[in-house]
Order: sequence, then structure tokens, then C-alpha cells
Amino acid sequence: MSDRIANAQLRGKVMSADEAAQFVNNGDNVGISGFTGAGYPKVLPLAIAERAKQMHARGEQYRIGLFTGASTAPDCDGVLAEADAISFRTPYQSDPILRAKINEGTIDYADYHLSESGIYVEQGFFGPMNVAIVEAVRITEEGHLIPSSSIGNNVEYLDNAEKIIIEVNSWQSLELEGMADIYRINRLPNRQPIPIVEAGQRVGTPYIDIDLAKVVAVVETDAPDRNAPFKPIDDQSRQIAAHFLDFLEGEVSAGRLSYDGYVMQSGVGNVPNAVMAGLLDSKFENIQAYTEVIQDGMVDLIDAGKMSVASATSFSLSPEYAERMNKEASRYRESIILRPQQISNHPEVVRRLGLIATNGLIEADIYGNVNSTNVTGSRIMNGVGGSADFTRNAFISSFITPSDAKGGLISAIVPMVSHVDHTEQDVKVVITEYGYADLRGLAPRQRAEKIIAIAHPDYRPLLQDYYDRALAYAQEKKIMQTPHLLGEALSFHQRFQETGSMKK
Amino acid sequence: MSDRIANAQLRGKVMSADEAAQFVNNGDNVGISGFTGAGYPKVLPLAIAERAKQMHARGEQYRIGLFTGASTAPDCDGVLAEADAISFRTPYQSDPILRAKINEGTIDYADYHLSESGIYVEQGFFGPMNVAIVEAVRITEEGHLIPSSSIGNNVEYLDNAEKIIIEVNSWQSLELEGMADIYRINRLPNRQPIPIVEAGQRVGTPYIDIDLAKVVAVVETDAPDRNAPFKPIDDQSRQIAAHFLDFLEGEVSAGRLSYDGYVMQSGVGNVPNAVMAGLLDSKFENIQAYTEVIQDGMVDLIDAGKMSVASATSFSLSPEYAERMNKEASRYRESIILRPQQISNHPEVVRRLGLIATNGLIEADIYGNVNSTNVTGSRIMNGVGGSADFTRNAFISSFITPSDAKGGLISAIVPMVSHVDHTEQDVKVVITEYGYADLRGLAPRQRAEKIIAIAHPDYRPLLQDYYDRALAYAQEKKIMQTPHLLGEALSFHQRFQETGSMKK
Repeated sequence: MSDRIANAQLRGKVMSADEAAQFVNNGDNVGISGFTGAGYPKVLPLAIAERAKQMHARGEQYRIGLFTGASTAPDCDGVLAEADAISFRTPYQSDPILRAKINEGTIDYADYHLSESGIYVEQGFFGPMNVAIVEAVRITEEGHLIPSSSIGNNVEYLDNAEKIIIEVNSWQSLELEGMADIYRINRLPNRQPIPIVEAGQRVGTPYIDIDLAKVVAVVETDAPDRNAPFKPIDDQSRQIAAHFLDFLEGEVSAGRLSYDGYVMQSGVGNVPNAVMAGLLDSKFENIQAYTEVIQDGMVDLIDAGKMSVASATSFSLSPEYAERMNKEASRYRESIILRPQQISNHPEVVRRLGLIATNGLIEADIYGNVNSTNVTGSRIMNGVGGSADFTRNAFISSFITPSDAKGGLISAIVPMVSHVDHTEQDVKVVITEYGYADLRGLAPRQRAEKIIAIAHPDYRPLLQDYYDRALAYAQEKKIMQTPHLLGEALSFHQRFQETGSMKK
Repeated sequence: MSDRIANAQLRGKVMSADEAAQFVNNGDNVGISGFTGAGYPKVLPLAIAERAKQMHARGEQYRIGLFTGASTAPDCDGVLAEADAISFRTPYQSDPILRAKINEGTIDYADYHLSESGIYVEQGFFGPMNVAIVEAVRITEEGHLIPSSSIGNNVEYLDNAEKIIIEVNSWQSLELEGMADIYRINRLPNRQPIPIVEAGQRVGTPYIDIDLAKVVAVVETDAPDRNAPFKPIDDQSRQIAAHFLDFLEGEVSAGRLSYDGYVMQSGVGNVPNAVMAGLLDSKFENIQAYTEVIQDGMVDLIDAGKMSVASATSFSLSPEYAERMNKEASRYRESIILRPQQISNHPEVVRRLGLIATNGLIEADIYGNVNSTNVTGSRIMNGVGGSADFTRNAFISSFITPSDAKGGLISAIVPMVSHVDHTEQDVKVVITEYGYADLRGLAPRQRAEKIIAIAHPDYRPLLQDYYDRALAYAQEKKIMQTPHLLGEALSFHQRFQETGSMKK
């Protein structure tokens, strides 16, 4: 048995994944660790999927409600979805098989803000939490868990579950110990201010204390996180990043931002990585991240001495960077903090620290509303994730996106978004490869001009034509606040559904 | 001269409204006090409107950007709009003349969250703040302002304006002194936790300290706030209130709420007043309000010993109750606190205190998205106000509404809202006279069933028909997360635009 399990009582609970899976019953709500492929349980999902298949083969029902930090991996969400073992899923996902089943209507999916899903569990909005399955680097002599490469909702699930199953993964570096900062918010009505006033501040413990009596199984594993390589930065991403950096420079000129101490929040992806590559060569120093995930670009900024601290709830690294992190965790833990997602994304702290938030989108409309979740208003992509936690409360909230998608068949700018996740009140800057639209302080019609100007040139005339005719109609009807032609507002999406292209 | 102006320097600045209005120039950004008809300047708006008319008669340009707490009154927003003296308005309004000009397209209106508009001014998102015009009860010997019946954005406007004009209104009771609790949040990057952990806690000063050198004029006034009577509570409001109280009782049964210490946030209007009347006869005790405005119903709850404290940024009383408040302010100030709207609506405090938020709406859709602002997606009604400050961060966020409007021509439940101010992730409970839809923890299709069930019976078959056909289409196309027929999603609104009714 691994010496990573130092607690005598829990050493007595070590068993195989198949044995442990017997504690997970049909109809259970199961809260697991895992956030963007980091820190998810590596073997229980496979064992539960196997159990589901066997029971289904016998004609028995077996489906669980699955609660995570955010997305996980093919050998977690993927295998469970494939085995039809999931009835309900929250708060975020991105697995292709799972997504397909949700869109087929065989899995119910509730999309929630990542800062809030743990609270909802605590408050019983989903009914009881039956089982928590959480990956750890090791278990201390006292029975404390040392979290692995993500924290997510682990604390809320462990605190509220009736039964606990722990996976101890020896692939994860022991030197991750010290990166986690576990801080619990008191239950109502005794909540207190969160004492974080700087991104790099530690306010909790490096371990999660649990009720040992609830632990029903400990399973040993040795398996890597699912870390996908990023695509090389392309010209388009570089252009978008350049416009974003122009915008930042403008804020410095306006006296609203200093080259020293820019606090970054950044969504995941290639454009954000291009932004970070751009920051490497910029005048910005002592950059701090108070964000959801640590990406390759942040590791580069730390290595270059440009980023002084990165606070997040999880890693989301390429295999190469994950390996480096595992090898050099003792060095990186000086400048990296992993927090519960309730804290990494908390409106209170986000507002206090004055973040500049930068997230991606599916589409924005000419008035600045943003759709992050439902393609053509119906088909779920991933979920809102933490984008709204940050967007609503940031000092400045920006969205960065290529102006089109699918080789030009989809415009990122539409007359009216088909689903709203970020309202016109919250979206302050939209950036494409054609420039940035600074919407701050503007009324809707003023915004429309700025947004149409950064749409893809193929779609600009269509948008301008819609807007001109909407203006004429609104003038006649005296409904000029937000001019729309309701019969055509969703016409880009209808055209896409009918012809496969938003173009005429 | 009134002995309400105790500071010698400022006594030297006393002048007429017409003289003071000369400090307000064409193109200025002007930040004024005033929130739902309470505490707005009583004579400067009239004098500025007069100045605008005279200049317009001479062929000269004269328009200002007007910034407030929220809505004001006919002798403020109304006269200025009528005189075409406003070019830009933010963050909230409800005056009929002003609204008409906005919808005609002659005034630009930017709708922002009330907790954030003051920060935006501080950060310069609107350009410089040229003049602040603020009503006070009195000016102390040191030159501190004792605020009158609302606080709003007074602190932000006074701190950031180049010039200050003070109206000292002797209609306002001197005994309001002590009600205000003025707390400033440090500028970035030095923000600290807001130390409020109970609705009734005082953390600041009872006065606003200002830079005396910026004061260009002091004007004496003696004029009442604009306080409109509430309609008597009707049967429909009583039914909605009863369902809301049922919901609260359910929360007590579920162990999520206690009869002792329910923390209320409530929008303004007749249905909220009916809720408060219902609470008078309920088992709830020690009710606390952490909300935007103090309404008649809260005064009744205080008088009945049911409400222990009410924290807000403003009064919004009927004339009868306003008179009582003015007479008995020294008694009421034991249990009433007025805060800057940045604090009364602050996400940090709202989340910490665990509010149950209750707001009105224009329309909700079958998936739980809510439109609070734009009728048929285009015509502005009032604005989002503080509804999103509270809805996003409350412990439970509810919306209460009659199921139809305009004598049945408009349904409050539609297939797809024509504008989104509160997203599906945020809206937890919708209540009409037909019951409540508890949406917590549900996926979109599960929500649709609950919401259609509380729609007006005249509209239920139309909604069910839409939903059934949307389901069939989504099943075929495998886009089942949020089934919609994009060609019909806004058909209720199109029908209303074409025929004056949402009915077929």
C-alpha cells in the first residue's frame, strides 16, 4: 500500500475501484472533483460506468446525478455518458459524448455559475448529496486530504456528502502540497467578509479536513490528468491579442491602469494564450492573475518574471507544461495558489481586486448582449462556467473572439443573440481581429455603431442593413431605445439552421 | 437665511436657483441626488430647464448629461426632459416625459446596475463629472452635509465633481439626521472588505464630508419630495402575496429559513406591499430588510414590531407615510438606515447576508429568463435598477408578477423574452396569482413545465402548443437543451406589435 495514505483508519478503507463503486447507487447525487481535466477521479468513473452497463444488461435502472467542479475528461464524463449512467449533470461540461446526450435530451443539464453551484448543494437545492468522490495527492496522518491539481467544489461536496470515496493518485506530485488554500465561508446567517485583499494572499489551510467517519473507501490510482495541447498561436489570435493590448495601453494612458499590478482574469483557449504571449513583450510588470484556471501562458509569464502571482481553482495545462508543473511544483508553489471555486470566482473578491476580465463567447449582438452557452438558442455548447462570476463584477469586462467561425459560416456578431448569458449592462468591451468596441458609458444605439464596425466584413453589410431598417421602424413606432425588427432579429440563426450558413 | 446652513464659508455661497444654474453649462455632466422621488434637488432642475429654454430660444445649444441615483420626479427629470435640456441620462428613470423622449430617440439612455453607476463615474467611464447638485437637510458648522431622504450616488458625485451646488431643503425633517450611514469604498487597488455582517449595522458617518472649495452655490428650498400614493391592495396582489408566503413557509419546512431573521429585499410596488401586508399576519418575526427603498409596508412592519431593521438607500413612501416619517423621524431612525446605493445594493453584502430577493418583471420566458426593461425588446420602460444587484447574489431570487397585463392583451410569460436582464442561471422562483414555479436545480425543459403551469389560462394553451412543437423540432435536430422555434420564438411580441394583443 502506498505511503501516501498516512492515516491508519483510512488505510483500513483501501479497496479496489470496483468494490468502491458498490457504494454508488442508482438515483444517487454524486459530487466529484475535477476541473478542466485536472484533478478528476481517475478510476471510479470507469468502475461506475461498468456497474451501470452490467445493471442495464440485467434490465435494472442505474443512473446518477453528477456534480463536478467544471468539465472533466473522456475517462470521466465521457465513459459515464456513454454508459447512460448520468440522469442529471451540473454545473459545467465540455465532453463531446456527454454534450451529445444532453442535446439528444437523454441527460438533464443545469447550467450554473461556478461560484454558486457549491452553495446550492450546501443549501439543498438539488436534494441530498449522497456520495463525494475526490482525488487527493495524499492523506495525512490526521486524515486531512492534500488536494491534487484542482480544488473545484471539493470542499462543498465533502462537507455535504453522506459517503466519501477518496482516490489517492500517485501520478500527482507530492510537491503540490502547499499550493492549495482551503477557506470555508460560514453557513448562513453567520457569513463573514472573505479576508482576501490581494490576489496572492493565503487565508486558509493547505489541506481539506473531512469527517473520517463518512469515508467508505480509499482507492489508489496512478494516472495522468487529461491535459490537451494548445494549438500554436495563429495570426488571427495574434491580431485579437494585439487589439486587447492596445486597449490596455489606452487604459494606462487614461490613468485607470498602471503598468505595475494589472490583475488578470482570463478564460481558457488559444486567444487568451496569445494575449499572454503578447504580455511577455509588453511593459506590464508584476501582473497578477485572479482567475479560474492556470494556463500555459501564465506559466510562461511566471517564468519570465512578468507575473508575480496566479490564483485559480485548477490547472489547465498542455501535457508538456503539466509535466513541468509536476516536476517543479515546489518552485511554482511560491507563486501559484489553488482555491475552492467558490473563492476563486467569488463576486466579493472579484469586485474588490479590480480585475480586468477577458472571456470568450459564442456570439454578441449589436447592442452588447453576449451568448456564451446555447448555439442557435437551443444547442448547449459547454456552459456559462465562471464567465459571469467575473464579467458582472470585474473592473472592466471584455470579451475576445474571432469575428466569425466555421470558415465564415457563422458570424460572431448578430442582430440579436439567441440566448443571453451576459447582459448589455455587463459587457464593456468586445474585441475581434478587426479592433475593439469600447462600450462603456454608451447607450444602445451608440454601442451598435461600434460593434458593427468590428464584425467580419462579410457580415458588416448585413448587420448594417438590419440596423438601418430597425432604426427606421423604431423611429416610426417611437421605440428607439433598442431598435429591433422582431421578425428578423433571429434571422441569422434561422438562416444557419436552414442553409448551414448565416450568409445570405 | 436659514440656520440650517451653519458653515460660515458656505453661508457666503447662498444665492438664488437662477444664479446657481449659471454654473451648469452646455455639455456638462451633472450628477444629482434623488432616488424614487426622494431627496432630489427641488429648484435647480427648474432653473436649469428655464436656462435651457432661454438659450434654445436664442438659437444656442444647451443640453447636459444627467446622472442620478435612480428615478426622480416631474419637477426634476420631467421639466428637464420637456425643455430638451438632457442629451444623456443614466442609470435609471421612470418619468413619462423623459421616457417618451428616450423612446423617440432624442435622449441617449444608458441603463446600468445601480450598485455600479457610481463606480463608473469614479473611474471616468463617462468622462468628467462637471457639477454635483445635492439636496441636504442641513450643513453643519464644519461644512458636512446631512443627507435628506435618499443617499443614492451622492457621495460619488460630490467626490468626483468639479463644482458642487447644495440645496438645503427645510421641508425635510432635521431629525433625519442620524439615519444616514456614509461609508466609502477605497479606490482601486486599495479596496477592503465592507465590514457589514448584519443588515442593521452602522459602519460609517451620519454625514457626507465634502471639499468645501468645490462648492459654488448653496440654495435654500422648502419643497416636498414627490411621493405617490400606492393603490389599495387588490385581490390579485393578495393572491400573489399568498403564494409568495407559501413559498417562504416551504423554505422554513425545508430548514433553509427560520421564522426569526428573514432578510428581505423587495422591489417597489403594489404586489410587494401586499407581501408586506401578508407578513404582518405571518409567523415571521425579527424581519430585516436589506433593500433599495423603504416602502409603506416596511413602516407598517416596523410599527407592528415585526421588522427589527430596514436598511436602504432611499424612502419611497406615500404622502401620508412621508408625513409620518418626517414627524417621527427621531423614532424611526432607531430602526432605519440609509446607505449609499453602492452599499445598499453591493453584491458583497447581498451575498453575505443571504437575502431573499423579490422583484417585479415585464416578462419571463418558459425557461426562466427575465426581461425587466425593454417592452417588445425595444421600448424602454424604466431600467434594470437594482434588480440584478440583488437577483444575482441573493440566497433565493424570486420574481413576482400578475400573469398578464393591459387587461389581458399582454402575457407575462412568453416563449422567449424579447430582452434579457436576468439570465436563466439567476432566476430561481417565479410567482403569479396562479402559484409559484420553483426553478432551483432544474434543467431548462423541467423549468418550462413549471412556468407554463403558472401562466394566465388564456395563454397557457398557446405556450404549451409552442413548447410541444419546439420539443418535436429539437428532438429531430438534437438541440434539446433549450428547445425553441426561432421563427416563432418572438411571435407573441410580433402579434402584439401588429394587433395590439398577444392573443391569437
